[in-house]
Amino acid sequence: MSITPVRELHDLSLSKESKTIKYNLVQVKGTWTRKKRKTQRQTKNERVSTAEIHECSRERGTTWTVVSPIVFTYQVMQIQKLLDPSNDALLTGHIRDPRQLELLRCNPRPIKRFVVMDETVFKLYGCQVTDYFENRGVLYRILPLATTEENKSMEKVMTILGEVHKFGIDRRTEPIIAIGGGVCLDIVGLAASLYRRRTPYIRVPTTLLSYIDASVGAKAGVNFANCKNKLGTYIPPVAALLDRSFIQTLPRRHISNGLAEMLKMALMKHRGLFELLEQHGQYLLDSKFQSNGVDLTPVAAVATKAAIESMLEELAPNLWEDSLDRLVDFGHLISPELEMKVLPVLLHGEAVNIDMAFMVYVARERGLLSEGEKLRIVRCMLALELPVWHGDCTLALVQRALADRLKHSGGLVRMPLPTGLGCAEIFNDTDDGTLCQAYEKWCNELGPEPSLSILMSSGHV
Amino acid sequence: MSITPVRELHDLSLSKESKTIKYNLVQVKGTWTRKKRKTQRQTKNERVSTAEIHECSRERGTTWTVVSPIVFTYQVMQIQKLLDPSNDALLTGHIRDPRQLELLRCNPRPIKRFVVMDETVFKLYGCQVTDYFENRGVLYRILPLATTEENKSMEKVMTILGEVHKFGIDRRTEPIIAIGGGVCLDIVGLAASLYRRRTPYIRVPTTLLSYIDASVGAKAGVNFANCKNKLGTYIPPVAALLDRSFIQTLPRRHISNGLAEMLKMALMKHRGLFELLEQHGQYLLDSKFQSNGVDLTPVAAVATKAAIESMLEELAPNLWEDSLDRLVDFGHLISPELEMKVLPVLLHGEAVNIDMAFMVYVARERGLLSEGEKLRIVRCMLALELPVWHGDCTLALVQRALADRLKHSGGLVRMPLPTGLGCAEIFNDTDDGTLCQAYEKWCNELGPEPSLSILMSSGHV
Ligand SMILES: NC(=O)c1ccc[n+]([C@@H]2O[C@H](COP(=O)([O-])OP(=O)(O)OC[C@H]3O[C@@H](n4cnc5c(N)ncnc54)[C@H](O)[C@@H]3O)[C@@H](O)[C@H]2O)c1
Ligand SMILES: NC(=O)c1ccc[n+]([C@@H]2O[C@H](COP(=O)([O-])OP(=O)(O)OC[C@H]3O[C@@H](n4cnc5c(N)ncnc54)[C@H](O)[C@@H]3O)[C@@H](O)[C@H]2O)c1
Ligand SMILES: [Zn+2]
Ligand SMILES: [Zn+2]
Repeated sequence: MSITPVRELHDLSLSKESKTIKYNLVQVKGTWTRKKRKTQRQTKNERVSTAEIHECSRERGTTWTVVSPIVFTYQVMQIQKLLDPSNDALLTGHIRDPRQLELLRCNPRPIKRFVVMDETVFKLYGCQVTDYFENRGVLYRILPLATTEENKSMEKVMTILGEVHKFGIDRRTEPIIAIGGGVCLDIVGLAASLYRRRTPYIRVPTTLLSYIDASVGAKAGVNFANCKNKLGTYIPPVAALLDRSFIQTLPRRHISNGLAEMLKMALMKHRGLFELLEQHGQYLLDSKFQSNGVDLTPVAAVATKAAIESMLEELAPNLWEDSLDRLVDFGHLISPELEMKVLPVLLHGEAVNIDMAFMVYVARERGLLSEGEKLRIVRCMLALELPVWHGDCTLALVQRALADRLKHSGGLVRMPLPTGLGCAEIFNDTDDGTLCQAYEKWCNELGPEPSLSILMSSGHV
Repeated sequence: MSITPVRELHDLSLSKESKTIKYNLVQVKGTWTRKKRKTQRQTKNERVSTAEIHECSRERGTTWTVVSPIVFTYQVMQIQKLLDPSNDALLTGHIRDPRQLELLRCNPRPIKRFVVMDETVFKLYGCQVTDYFENRGVLYRILPLATTEENKSMEKVMTILGEVHKFGIDRRTEPIIAIGGGVCLDIVGLAASLYRRRTPYIRVPTTLLSYIDASVGAKAGVNFANCKNKLGTYIPPVAALLDRSFIQTLPRRHISNGLAEMLKMALMKHRGLFELLEQHGQYLLDSKFQSNGVDLTPVAAVATKAAIESMLEELAPNLWEDSLDRLVDFGHLISPELEMKVLPVLLHGEAVNIDMAFMVYVARERGLLSEGEKLRIVRCMLALELPVWHGDCTLALVQRALADRLKHSGGLVRMPLPTGLGCAEIFNDTDDGTLCQAYEKWCNELGPEPSLSILMSSGHV
């Protein structure tokens, strides 16, 4: 298979004498000009950009290829007592440049902040947030919003934008603050990304799921045409400010929900985290991730740190999801379809867990997991009080979801599967037979009439 | 003024023993892990990312700083006979990787394309576009849209997204094509950027303004709350395919409109382009940028190339407008407010030209331009049939627009001003007195009863 150079294919009638010149860009006194192959060393009077322009001129016209790197930098910060008025983090935690911080301190004008809060969170923490801003003399506006999965939509984004515009903020220095669960953070993130083509925003997660997942990456978005997160962007917040104390008011079911995403990272790449969840899952549920003064084993701290670190490892090199091979997609191949189908019956993490449980059976069917490993995983899921099976997750739905993924992932299904406890690989060759057998076994063992042996037996196999 | 290190300011009660570790990210067998200070050399089995994670652990929690560069690469291609069915460019011109091109050729499935066309352009070129796709056996859907400045809105974006979703495209390999003026390209660009968090799109500009300006950069967006381009993104198209022949059907007034943005680049940094416009402006208007077979002086080709090149030089190093000092903002300090105020009376380039004309008087008042240079510029504007003054551009509007800019540009007005013919600098110290005097002179000389001497005299001073 011989390959014709791409340039010739474009336009076969081109003059053969085309040649490409690579230009660097150099700025002198405010004006950028092109220079050939300039080494990227700055002198006192000139600045060299990391961007390049490749110019290919031919008789019939010119082609310019622009190569321009944009560096995203953001902070994920664990913070205690975020709403304590003596804590600066909510106002200035995102500022990394000390000079900028100093400028802010010297500025006599009051700090201005637009805040969007999930309605339920507002009921619980609205007073504290108000107190914080009052105490700090901030010019603020809090917008409580019913940010539920059902109205995670562009209309909500526009509502926010209308209010932001009325309030008026400086696009450079007055980040929008989102306080709430993943839905709230996702909607506000998209709104901020659109306002004046990019306004910084800060995420304050108040659910376990958003603490370890939705806050850590760059994704923001809303549902569209009954499809999960169909519209969105990859603009990270300037900072995610993580305070575990919000989790104390979270319903138990939502803690399980977050534990599902934590278990995902454990299964994919962190055996230690898996073992911790296996042993202390119930304790984490009971203690709601709070440290009780004399915490001898700081399980909550260790678990969240491990989850965030393994998540960041996978997200940072692939912030815009250019690579389609993503371990973090585990549990997210079938679940989006399932979640939207039964909305609002299943929470995000619950749908994810059902997907993962099925995939564990696929891995077992392929011989990647031993029976004992499979059982340990399923028992761990059950101990985390997560659903491991759902009637609406039919074989047809599974096949449709995987076919859809195939279509949108460059012709490969890219299925992450555990290959042991805490390690995984991505597979493209799971045949339909394996899928059907795994499905059958999954239904038999975990379906409406589960084999008792699995769900009841205790201790490890 | 002593500056406290930023980290201590964040949380004064931290353990002093915090230290930051810089991690690189290395991928082995599909799993990313952190490694300390890894040099960025890949071995056979491992990949090193350009991303970094800096971790700062303290007793009370950890802060991770994620640094992740995303490289945008896009092509701006001058193409002849774009709609000729023998020309591949519209279908594959954006593909730079020869293997991908080969894959496409081997794929038995028909190519799929969703196309949005400006309604007027559809009336003029719809048949040709349809013929092209029919001829090439493409599965296509053309959506003609009334993409005017008045309905450059989020609603139009949602209309497009609904249709795209119904039609169904592969987010990786089936770019959305926009054919039209700047309004159409801006709306479609935003829609594509949002769909599945980023779907590639192709710009085919059909106005002179979009040929030399809106196609060249990364910006997309819509108006909001009566403010120009208030919502948008910085996602460049995968390719801008420039075919000058579209311009032949463009009304003369819209050619002038495009010439305004060309003149902007000329005044800022390209004396040669200025002189060309000065001498051949009328010819370019008459010939509508078409080459008439025996073009001895290919003025249109030279002018467009110079305009695009100087534009790209300024845009490529500042694709996301991180630097606020932008020569390309010349003519865009006052004009957005003016344009939206009198909508639809002034076209974008016309508003820009009125802004530039006023700024030329500011530059003259500051002694940056000689009287002769000022006159040459004004005469050139008039020869390009552009308005040089407007009654709605009151002193109050000027002052309001500049105050607004001050607020949104980090406290500096960052006013680009010509410092000669084809050179410019950015100034932050134009006082109100100068502004008022320039305004008065501007009104006297170019206002409703202009001094004849300026508008009538011919030849250079
Ligand atoms: N952007 C990303 O990278 C990313 C990652 C994972 C998930 N997500 C998205 O996140 C969403 C799920 O997030 P979620 O699970 O946080 O759901 P959620 O935002 O719907 O919050 C769950 C519920 O808990 C309530 N709540 C929130 N904080 C509370 C608190 N401190 N005390 C009591 N109640 C509280 C909320 O009102 C809501 O009813 C999904 O839409 C998912 O797509 C995004
Ligand atoms: N994204 C960017 O970087 C950027 C840069 C500059 C301007 N813009 C935006 O571009 C817009 C202005 O663009 P524009 O001047 O192209 O306006 P436009 O898109 O409104 O087009 C002008 C008019 O010409 C008609 N038309 C288009 N092509 C034609 C053709 N070949 N023959 C006959 N008629 C044709 C259109 O129907 C329209 O009525 C503004 O909204 C401005 O904000 C964006
Ligand atoms: Zn998830
Ligand atoms: Zn413009």
